[in-house]
Amino acid sequence: MRIGLLQFAPQVGETEKNIAKIQKLLDQSPIVDLWVLPELASSGYNFESRDEAVLCSESLNNSRFIHFLMERATKTGAWFVSGINERNGDKLYNSSVMVNADGVVGVYRKLHLFKNEKYFFEPGNLGLPVFDTPWGKIGMLVCFDWMFPEVWRLLALKGAQLVCHPSNLVLPWCQQATPGYALTNRIFVATTNRIGHERGLDFTGRSQLVDPYGSIILQGKKRKKQTLVADIDLAESLNKIMTSENHAFDDRRGDVYHLELKVK
Amino acid sequence: MRIGLLQFAPQVGETEKNIAKIQKLLDQSPIVDLWVLPELASSGYNFESRDEAVLCSESLNNSRFIHFLMERATKTGAWFVSGINERNGDKLYNSSVMVNADGVVGVYRKLHLFKNEKYFFEPGNLGLPVFDTPWGKIGMLVCFDWMFPEVWRLLALKGAQLVCHPSNLVLPWCQQATPGYALTNRIFVATTNRIGHERGLDFTGRSQLVDPYGSIILQGKKRKKQTLVADIDLAESLNKIMTSENHAFDDRRGDVYHLELKVK
Repeated sequence: MRIGLLQFAPQVGETEKNIAKIQKLLDQSPIVDLWVLPELASSGYNFESRDEAVLCSESLNNSRFIHFLMERATKTGAWFVSGINERNGDKLYNSSVMVNADGVVGVYRKLHLFKNEKYFFEPGNLGLPVFDTPWGKIGMLVCFDWMFPEVWRLLALKGAQLVCHPSNLVLPWCQQATPGYALTNRIFVATTNRIGHERGLDFTGRSQLVDPYGSIILQGKKRKKQTLVADIDLAESLNKIMTSENHAFDDRRGDVYHLELKVK
Repeated sequence: MRIGLLQFAPQVGETEKNIAKIQKLLDQSPIVDLWVLPELASSGYNFESRDEAVLCSESLNNSRFIHFLMERATKTGAWFVSGINERNGDKLYNSSVMVNADGVVGVYRKLHLFKNEKYFFEPGNLGLPVFDTPWGKIGMLVCFDWMFPEVWRLLALKGAQLVCHPSNLVLPWCQQATPGYALTNRIFVATTNRIGHERGLDFTGRSQLVDPYGSIILQGKKRKKQTLVADIDLAESLNKIMTSENHAFDDRRGDVYHLELKVK
């Protein structure tokens, strides 16, 4: 499959401008099977109040942004994974959606909220779903979820071959950590991170695609608006064999892990 | 505390020679509080048969190697963590011991055996113990255990501030992965890896001390016999605060992790 990471700087509250920016980058890029966009790609990130967050949110059933992605999907055949400010009734979620020409085919709601997000969003309540695609099984995480090894492990154990990871990173460490997660779980990791400044926050860019051996296949610049494209074979992540006698999953000592968790 | 990593090339079956090598390196090094030695430091690694592995094993109650460590501990006040080929009845374990002037104060038996080790050793059956020391709580892992994120997480959740990690690494990835484990768990990690060749195996050296922010404080050479010494404060690892609103452990979504594990 051909995967693309679309790194840019969304502007807070400017959905139409953000869609136009995405459209322009897509028009300048090759056709790919799956595009990964940043966290909250259509709404921007650093809301001043919950009221502003609500104003910038969209219902998944009636979303200008998702309609735009569906149109692009219809035109090019591409699928999309993108962060979105999801409104559901009177609640907001910092979500990631998987969209193709048929519409939304997967939703994940961020489990681990970062800083002020705790005042705007509800913690995710859809668990860690894994979705079938024409290329293999794909899971999603959002930004600060990276800090929690459990979620990478659980997605991999549930069969995810690729984890798409829309992000708006401000801490400096994620790009160092994901190669380890890819390696120990033998999965691909596609982190698309935004760039730019927003109301005092400086985002770290350096979007990154990592293979199941922890090798960095693609890495963006810190401040550059850009798309990054690579051809990968998700079947590689099905091979969990480490040596003639070792298997990354079968060698797990679930007996011990579960006992120790209970003791704690 | 002052911690030392003692990187050298044990020879298979040559306990006295290995002790002499260790002694010489210690005599050339500063006094430290805790020395970390490689996996199977006294016996060597790549046994040709289980019979040879038995011949090279020692009971913890009657071990020439442990007596040597106790003597050094009595003389200098240092504690030691070292890999040892442990015989217990008719069983062998690839173990790590913690030794001070009083004797063995902690034992861990390797949970995840690598390649041929599966023919010689029993899988560890002592769980993931954490030991109180004058400097803080310390856990132990051995070599290939590095590949399993669960054991780092569980040790940290049980209070380990430092994980000592005697190793005989042949795969190329561990030194890239431990900074991520240190960072996401906010712990110190001391990997002492052997150097040299042994019966077709090439060990990767580059012993490494990592701090709770994933920074590499000490790193050895690939092929050099050497000791590496640093002053660290294990209290740093008690601080799990990430931001004003985020805590590395309190933000965990145990509710989701447990549910997802059951579903699987």
